[in-house]
Amino acid sequence: MEYKIQLRESDMPKQWYNLAADLPTPPLPPLGPDGKPVSPQMLAPVFPMNIIEQEVSTQRWIDIPEEVLNILYQWRPAPLRRAVRLEKLLKTPARIYFKDESVSPAGSHKPNTAVAQAYYNKVAGIKRLTTETGAGQWGSALAFACALFGLECKVYMVRISFDQKPFRKLMMQVWGANCVASPSTETHAGRKILAETPDTPGSLGIAISEAIEAAVTDPTGQTRYSLGSVLNHVLLHQTIIGLEAKKQLQIAGEKLPDVVIGCAGGGSNFAGLAFPFTTDKINGAKIDIIPVEPAACPTMTRAPFVYDHGDTACMTPLLAMHSLGHAFVPAPIHAGGLRYHGMAPLVCQAIVEGLFAPRSYHQSKCYEAAMTWARTEGMICAPETSHAVAATIDEAIKAREEGKEKVILFSYSGHGLMDLSGYDKYMSGKLSDYELPEEVLQQCTKDLAKMPPAPMRKSGRW
Amino acid sequence: MEYKIQLRESDMPKQWYNLAADLPTPPLPPLGPDGKPVSPQMLAPVFPMNIIEQEVSTQRWIDIPEEVLNILYQWRPAPLRRAVRLEKLLKTPARIYFKDESVSPAGSHKPNTAVAQAYYNKVAGIKRLTTETGAGQWGSALAFACALFGLECKVYMVRISFDQKPFRKLMMQVWGANCVASPSTETHAGRKILAETPDTPGSLGIAISEAIEAAVTDPTGQTRYSLGSVLNHVLLHQTIIGLEAKKQLQIAGEKLPDVVIGCAGGGSNFAGLAFPFTTDKINGAKIDIIPVEPAACPTMTRAPFVYDHGDTACMTPLLAMHSLGHAFVPAPIHAGGLRYHGMAPLVCQAIVEGLFAPRSYHQSKCYEAAMTWARTEGMICAPETSHAVAATIDEAIKAREEGKEKVILFSYSGHGLMDLSGYDKYMSGKLSDYELPEEVLQQCTKDLAKMPPAPMRKSGRW
Repeated sequence: MEYKIQLRESDMPKQWYNLAADLPTPPLPPLGPDGKPVSPQMLAPVFPMNIIEQEVSTQRWIDIPEEVLNILYQWRPAPLRRAVRLEKLLKTPARIYFKDESVSPAGSHKPNTAVAQAYYNKVAGIKRLTTETGAGQWGSALAFACALFGLECKVYMVRISFDQKPFRKLMMQVWGANCVASPSTETHAGRKILAETPDTPGSLGIAISEAIEAAVTDPTGQTRYSLGSVLNHVLLHQTIIGLEAKKQLQIAGEKLPDVVIGCAGGGSNFAGLAFPFTTDKINGAKIDIIPVEPAACPTMTRAPFVYDHGDTACMTPLLAMHSLGHAFVPAPIHAGGLRYHGMAPLVCQAIVEGLFAPRSYHQSKCYEAAMTWARTEGMICAPETSHAVAATIDEAIKAREEGKEKVILFSYSGHGLMDLSGYDKYMSGKLSDYELPEEVLQQCTKDLAKMPPAPMRKSGRW
Repeated sequence: MEYKIQLRESDMPKQWYNLAADLPTPPLPPLGPDGKPVSPQMLAPVFPMNIIEQEVSTQRWIDIPEEVLNILYQWRPAPLRRAVRLEKLLKTPARIYFKDESVSPAGSHKPNTAVAQAYYNKVAGIKRLTTETGAGQWGSALAFACALFGLECKVYMVRISFDQKPFRKLMMQVWGANCVASPSTETHAGRKILAETPDTPGSLGIAISEAIEAAVTDPTGQTRYSLGSVLNHVLLHQTIIGLEAKKQLQIAGEKLPDVVIGCAGGGSNFAGLAFPFTTDKINGAKIDIIPVEPAACPTMTRAPFVYDHGDTACMTPLLAMHSLGHAFVPAPIHAGGLRYHGMAPLVCQAIVEGLFAPRSYHQSKCYEAAMTWARTEGMICAPETSHAVAATIDEAIKAREEGKEKVILFSYSGHGLMDLSGYDKYMSGKLSDYELPEEVLQQCTKDLAKMPPAPMRKSGRW
């Protein structure tokens, strides 16, 4: 038995997988301010055309450019590891595998799409990218990618994380990016929110508004916006995770996994691992595919499926997704990357189809799992990743109780070395859990009723 | 061309290499308080006998226990990477390879020996380990290893790093270790130094005194001390770095490297990479082997070769080494792991033999190199590692000027994600350099003249 399965560079997938080609029902299109589907041209001030083409593509396989591969090779193929010591501790008959995305220079799965997006902008002649970041994983990933392609990079970082995680900002600066706390005084959107709620901890929705505004109002026209999750092209770039994992499981002598697990904030990490296995499920394989979200921000498990904006200031098109409403500001949990009011439309459509079984956890349970993980497997995971670890432990115990020799695969989306303050709170007994109150959810749902309806389309039916 | 060369687990070396077997002149033995060589029994209160046997062994190859291999597999074999983008930037004909030890759970090469030491103590029936740590790389590595073997772990962390790097302490706590600032009030040695110099930034020498005292005074007799560098057995455990690199260079189609570079504080990182190539040099190969140290703590380049204690309170035997004196407190440079008054006796003996060509750099030059590295190769290195990066850049430029197609190999000993405050100082123009004044060096040398003489033995001559 090998403890980790390494692919050679020559065996790394050379194409991304597009789930849109295989979903029983294609996802609902984004809508413009007029309630009609947006055209590619309408998105042109925000994204370069080569990315917009990917965003709307229904082609099953899309080539990864060689320039992108040459940078991914730095840390990819990422290892698939076996959590032998955790299996032993839990006395489970399950075999637990995890795809280790923490090995990238920025410490998470995020560079997989950052590199691709920086490349496409570069070849489109763009000089500067703007973006938002929550915990800082995405901002540092884009800063890294921009450094390698010689692009300028501006990051709006959710204030609570900006204050809690000064070292993330330093990472971005080392890579040459400019990072400010959001809401900032640099944009109309930021100033408006600061005027209304000066003490706001910020949110991904607000930071996205600021970053889009900064991109589209640049008079030189050489700035575009880059998003770290949610959109189809971002999920596409992440499918290299699951494609590699599939090859690696075969090398390990496994067929398909019985359970696939990933934490989901905007959905790209989860989708990256899960989509290449979702196609097997669509074709009849029995796989439990589980996106895990925080109970403090329960989009998939409690929020309605609606048309809503991706950002707080309503600058994005309307996306068909599970949403708590674009004005929703999630409680200040440590997993900053999971504090998002919406969810990737492709993930949501698959949920509607019954392909995924989302669940939510409180952060104290996740930190407990992360501590167990650190002391058995020896790795310190990101607060986001701890949600997947918690679900994996639950599934491994379930396998023990059922006496089933299952194969569990989860995405180890990032390390927690930049996010240790949450561990500090947990160890000193000062960690709070936040349950979204039912009345807040009802108010969100009521507000969302003003948006255009998103018909639930399942298996081709409207 | 592959950007990184991965070995399979089955190709990982199963034995460590002991340079003591091949040095032209065996190193001088450690001396006890009576000026006579220490016997293994005299070290028994400090280390378990299985480690003492390794410390004095002159056997060329020593088996790595299977229990140790099974944990090393988690991140080993570590990748050998090619720094193609740096080569291009420098327009050098040199091929630059680096052995990436930053991929370990603790982020550096330190777990290579931490795991071995925890194992040997465990099988010797020891329940608890004490140690010192500078920047925290070693303390967190031992905490990690102790967690996996179920040992208690107590870490005395040099105060300046304890204050500058709170997250390192949190890492140790997540792995279950107890970490205090040194000098502490918990030991006689600590209290004495605090009484004399209450504002001391601390030093590795002081922290070692505290950790040894805590081990040998434990009334249960079940505590031992663990050292992260300097001693023969520690260097031995690190040779897996160079042994792997040797195999990987062959896979890459290279013969021996022309230049081998590593930063050196206590010497274990440098030795780990260099020793397996030193034997080739002894046998006639032409290799420039360069240990790099900070100009603020110049043991190899400026300090005399003498018998001195490894710690400030004179608890260790006398070691034959380049030393600035056991009472020397280095300036507060950011590379905490290089702030040590001495140097591994095996490294020093090889310097005496003319096998290594040590050099020193100021930290501002190293941070400049680290910034170049981050923006071309995309990786953020530890302040210690930046010394090796700086030397690599110098050597690559030299190869360009000489028009020589050299193979340069360096040890990428750790990532800098926990050490970003130094980058902050550099980027904001607030970084200071510290040159050791000649009069301070002369005073050190004068004080050391009171110690027993260490005859320079070169190539078998006394």
